[in-house]
Amino acid sequence: MQVIPPALDRLIDDLGKLPGIGRKTATRLALNVLRRPVGYAQELSQALAELHASIQLCSCCFAFSESDPCGICADARRDGELVCVVEEPGDLMAIEKTASFRGHYHILHGVLSPIDGIGPDELKIQELIARINSGTVKEILIATSSTVPGEATASYLIDLLQNAPVKLTRLACGIPMGMDIKYADRHTLARAIESRSLAK
Amino acid sequence: MQVIPPALDRLIDDLGKLPGIGRKTATRLALNVLRRPVGYAQELSQALAELHASIQLCSCCFAFSESDPCGICADARRDGELVCVVEEPGDLMAIEKTASFRGHYHILHGVLSPIDGIGPDELKIQELIARINSGTVKEILIATSSTVPGEATASYLIDLLQNAPVKLTRLACGIPMGMDIKYADRHTLARAIESRSLAK
Ligand SMILES: [Zn+2]
Ligand SMILES: [Zn+2]
Repeated sequence: MQVIPPALDRLIDDLGKLPGIGRKTATRLALNVLRRPVGYAQELSQALAELHASIQLCSCCFAFSESDPCGICADARRDGELVCVVEEPGDLMAIEKTASFRGHYHILHGVLSPIDGIGPDELKIQELIARINSGTVKEILIATSSTVPGEATASYLIDLLQNAPVKLTRLACGIPMGMDIKYADRHTLARAIESRSLAK
Repeated sequence: MQVIPPALDRLIDDLGKLPGIGRKTATRLALNVLRRPVGYAQELSQALAELHASIQLCSCCFAFSESDPCGICADARRDGELVCVVEEPGDLMAIEKTASFRGHYHILHGVLSPIDGIGPDELKIQELIARINSGTVKEILIATSSTVPGEATASYLIDLLQNAPVKLTRLACGIPMGMDIKYADRHTLARAIESRSLAK
């Protein structure tokens, strides 16, 4: 007996692939979409359809952007000598919200995680080295999360860049251990940026 | 300074309209979609675009269905004399999963909630009365949630149907107070259906 119409089931399946969305939550969300005026589903459908077409990776910092270079890399008022290395675009957004950082970014697009088969080659690490070698960068601020894989990634970068011609700094302690920096409140994060420490 | 590309921002806005999805969660989900192969966003986009087109309300029980009458109303092996009244399609799905109910359904599409401007006319209550008046129904099992608005809706229906020519029953106590029936485990729910009590 088919209780869930196939079109609804398809949507539930698709939504259930998102992180943190189990089948019950996916069902609740899909039914909510179905009960709204059809315009909402169409709007969401279109936003999804157009997402990848209009967004690309900035070839300098690897942020998602509608232009290349992105707005931050292209902004002459920002300090291109200071580059903040983050795991993900969400971390960049969190740091931008503090309005405490006026440098550039470098997005790794992940963390080292041997269990998941993610080694240095899966991250934008070669690209970071190339960027350092290009000669503009004077300071690298490592702003990975204070989680186990975030710390492992930071350690790897510190080893790797030991002899690179840049100052190497890290976010100050102040962010509670085990917390993803995306979820830190902006004041804690701002303080951590201001009192960043030397990493080598 | 535009940190979030407009196309991404649009998707975050749209996702943030879903129940229980705040801006932070919407951002996390949207970035996850962006990092997957484009095929996933397209699949989800298409599922959303086709959702309303292929799904309608069953004109008898008001379930979402790709056919009218729905599969349950059209199933000759089910008992059309017993009609279970639920708040939402999700409740029907939860009850079907117990495999303890072989009757038909009637979906109110909401609960009475004066604060939100939802009175009897906003729910499928006139349609329930018409269905009773059509003469097939012998028992109405009221299966609203044991929440304040769910209980208020049940009381309203019991008053309204006091003199209707049908037996009026309710789910047995057993479901913890304050719990939405969608989230009850199937065994508790099955027991509550089996030992349903007379409401008048
Ligand atoms: Zn950039
Ligand atoms: Zn039906």
